[in-house]
Amino acid sequence: MTPKNLTWAAAVFLFLLGVCSATSTRPRTHHRRRRPCKTMVFYFHDILYNGHNSKNATATIVGAPAWGNTTILAGKNHFGNVVVFDDPITLDNNLHSPPVGRAQGFYLYDKKEIFTAWLGFSFVFNSTDHKGTINFAGADPLMNKTRDISVIGGTGDFFMTRGMATLSTDAFEGDVYFRLRADIRLYECW
Amino acid sequence: MTPKNLTWAAAVFLFLLGVCSATSTRPRTHHRRRRPCKTMVFYFHDILYNGHNSKNATATIVGAPAWGNTTILAGKNHFGNVVVFDDPITLDNNLHSPPVGRAQGFYLYDKKEIFTAWLGFSFVFNSTDHKGTINFAGADPLMNKTRDISVIGGTGDFFMTRGMATLSTDAFEGDVYFRLRADIRLYECW
Amino acid sequence: MTPKNLTWAAAVFLFLLGVCSATSTRPRTHHRRRRPCKTMVFYFHDILYNGHNSKNATATIVGAPAWGNTTILAGKNHFGNVVVFDDPITLDNNLHSPPVGRAQGFYLYDKKEIFTAWLGFSFVFNSTDHKGTINFAGADPLMNKTRDISVIGGTGDFFMTRGMATLSTDAFEGDVYFRLRADIRLYECW
Repeated sequence: MTPKNLTWAAAVFLFLLGVCSATSTRPRTHHRRRRPCKTMVFYFHDILYNGHNSKNATATIVGAPAWGNTTILAGKNHFGNVVVFDDPITLDNNLHSPPVGRAQGFYLYDKKEIFTAWLGFSFVFNSTDHKGTINFAGADPLMNKTRDISVIGGTGDFFMTRGMATLSTDAFEGDVYFRLRADIRLYECW
Repeated sequence: MTPKNLTWAAAVFLFLLGVCSATSTRPRTHHRRRRPCKTMVFYFHDILYNGHNSKNATATIVGAPAWGNTTILAGKNHFGNVVVFDDPITLDNNLHSPPVGRAQGFYLYDKKEIFTAWLGFSFVFNSTDHKGTINFAGADPLMNKTRDISVIGGTGDFFMTRGMATLSTDAFEGDVYFRLRADIRLYECW
Repeated sequence: MTPKNLTWAAAVFLFLLGVCSATSTRPRTHHRRRRPCKTMVFYFHDILYNGHNSKNATATIVGAPAWGNTTILAGKNHFGNVVVFDDPITLDNNLHSPPVGRAQGFYLYDKKEIFTAWLGFSFVFNSTDHKGTINFAGADPLMNKTRDISVIGGTGDFFMTRGMATLSTDAFEGDVYFRLRADIRLYECW
């Protein structure tokens, strides 16, 4: 090998080394941030038990502060009410559309001055399109038009996933019915 | 360098570039998916307070729907009952084996028509084998033979871990005692 | 290309292949473990409703075991009490410092023999420094001087984050007021 060739070879070597390093240490997250690996939109429907609707209710108060009870949402913006739910998930905003799964878990109202909530729940899918679950947790300042919560894990089709869900209140009828739209963006897909 | 050599060098370059890219952008997760970085099996034992067993009880009802109370699990498949627990973890299915830690947190029953639950809890280890905690969250459709929940984090020996736990009901005795087997597979180990 | 050159080229090829592989399969996590991508310290202040302090209270009992109620923390180390909170977050240990956000969620006491708790909550920031939320979950053996819980996700400035928080009890005044210091170390920053 001539010196000239050697120099050239060294250049190739260094260049490739740089390419390798750049490629492999480029934060994977920046790349992923711009492009979710999966996006989905669902609606879920919450009908709160009020003492008279046990047939239709999908949610029930299970915890209340000293100034409340488990039949009616408490004063002070429902601060301290804990609700367990099993809400149908639909692809559009129609409560009577065939559900593709259930949203199951709890929410609690956590502020005296305004309505805010905290959520821990799962989407449990059982349709031809999706099998498995997506798990969510986070704060829901529900008076905001949109608010983001975390996708903290998943199973089945959503094995090990992480991401975000943007919630918006699509309908709200007194203390008995509300409908949330969930725009899910997954950034880690295994 | 002759034109022929140049062509050959360019080929090597492009090939290696391909190798580098393929290697570094190959989703790390596919690799990990096939091989958990750690697997473990534990049992945990839940003895629910029923008004008469305060000495042995490891769990107690803390939330109930309007049609229930905190001493007896409610009708409608316990929908709305919230239970807080501090259950011993053992290496085999014997309640009286020396515990290696405690399973601490809560579960809630979240469906009227059948038994399903939602879990948020930690394994808190304190043995010669393991120090630290593993945190879990997810839906538990407990009538299924097995069901998967998410490992959402950990501390100590399980710093920053993520993974899955497959739960199965190993024993079930009325409303007072049940034993779960947890097959834990961790896919992110720091 | 002479045989000698060919050998040399093969050597470069194998070497670079090794470099690529080593670089790209080096666990990203080891690197990150040693250096958090972000550290922060906050204090939050919990004033429990006791029947007489509705104006100042930031937290309220919402669940209790059969032997308790929602106005006073129960016997047996508060086992079974569930508390919902909306606590001010400050940069120093002064309750009256201007809050930079709110800690919102719940804790529950989960052991008969000693005080231990389990936490699910968010830091909801709204200051010039930070917008967004950080979500936490995990066991809090609160009699320990320090204890670690998991950062399971985040939104806004803390999009997709993961990490740890070390909690320590900075003040404790009877059953009504406590102040926690949270040393947050984020290891995944997008």
